[in-house]
Amino acid sequence: MLPGRLRVLVQLLARLPGVGEKTAQRYALYLAGEGSALARDLGAELSSLPDRVRPCTRCGNLAEVMPAARAGGTADETLCAICLDTRRDGSLLCVVFRVQDLLAVERSGAMRGRYFVLGRLLSPLDGTGPDELPTGRLVERIRADGVKEVILATPPSVDGEATALLLARELGALGVRVSRIASGVPHGGDLEFSDQITLGRAISGRRNVDVPR
Amino acid sequence: MLPGRLRVLVQLLARLPGVGEKTAQRYALYLAGEGSALARDLGAELSSLPDRVRPCTRCGNLAEVMPAARAGGTADETLCAICLDTRRDGSLLCVVFRVQDLLAVERSGAMRGRYFVLGRLLSPLDGTGPDELPTGRLVERIRADGVKEVILATPPSVDGEATALLLARELGALGVRVSRIASGVPHGGDLEFSDQITLGRAISGRRNVDVPR
Repeated sequence: MLPGRLRVLVQLLARLPGVGEKTAQRYALYLAGEGSALARDLGAELSSLPDRVRPCTRCGNLAEVMPAARAGGTADETLCAICLDTRRDGSLLCVVFRVQDLLAVERSGAMRGRYFVLGRLLSPLDGTGPDELPTGRLVERIRADGVKEVILATPPSVDGEATALLLARELGALGVRVSRIASGVPHGGDLEFSDQITLGRAISGRRNVDVPR
Repeated sequence: MLPGRLRVLVQLLARLPGVGEKTAQRYALYLAGEGSALARDLGAELSSLPDRVRPCTRCGNLAEVMPAARAGGTADETLCAICLDTRRDGSLLCVVFRVQDLLAVERSGAMRGRYFVLGRLLSPLDGTGPDELPTGRLVERIRADGVKEVILATPPSVDGEATALLLARELGALGVRVSRIASGVPHGGDLEFSDQITLGRAISGRRNVDVPR
């Protein structure tokens, strides 16, 4: 029913995360009709994207590709804004699952160190075992940068906890402090409607209250 | 926080129908990371889309742009597969709001005529008045093609009904039969959970049951 080129476009759009056939067709019809100017702009932007934005070779965050000299790295290095920022505390390393999580931690403003993006979590169900994790690269990074504390900020899910536990074990021999982000009742959350695991963690992870004298 | 080119991409993706800032960022992060091959393919496809697929100059359906000679039209005409199909009944014209609606009618297999895509509906709230409707082009098409019946298949919403009513009035003087698609309880639908307008229409639009003798 659809013109051939449009069917090809629908198939491509359906490969975006969370996009099914119906949504892909909706986007395609818009781009082929009233959104033709957007199609051209988006086409140009996407074509050049892999040459302009790449994962940071040091931490996995997304980085703008710049001439090596200007970026202060070697020719085959692409460094992100955080790795290039000399005011960052290089002795503090925050390990996250995805770039999205890195952005969320950055928004909190509570992290003054640098990052390491794992890209995947231990997941027996998906067939991701310990060998699929970039533990070797992480250890190398810790040694090379003189990291003193590693904060494990993987999500508080089954896979995230398993990954944190495995990494804590592997990094234990390096003589660095390994910590885990706190899990508990979220800010503004209601105890009444918190699930039992969250509440259990909030209690087992309780902290002393320092009363100013 | 995001590299500049990625922020530009997020802004572009957020112009797709139904896509907000968060979804756009999700697509952009995927395309800049693991989806870089998709970014290139999609970029090439979108860049050439406006040159390859355009609204049919006769009916508004989407059409593949072909050399005029092969398509059997004049140089400035782009005709869709339905307008080019000589087995279609040219005396029957189905008027729809959008290309999506045309595709839905085609899927039903109940339409053997051709189409006319309005592109918009009468909508006092959005400021779309009678002058914004392509009534002139529709009348011209009816005259030129010797159309005998016009089926108004605009949606059974307030705007769709108002548009159908206006068109029925304008086309009345042309001496063609003007009909409206039936509105009622959908196939497999439950009377108990049908809203009162739908049920009211199902009753007022009732048809005689022909009992075979």
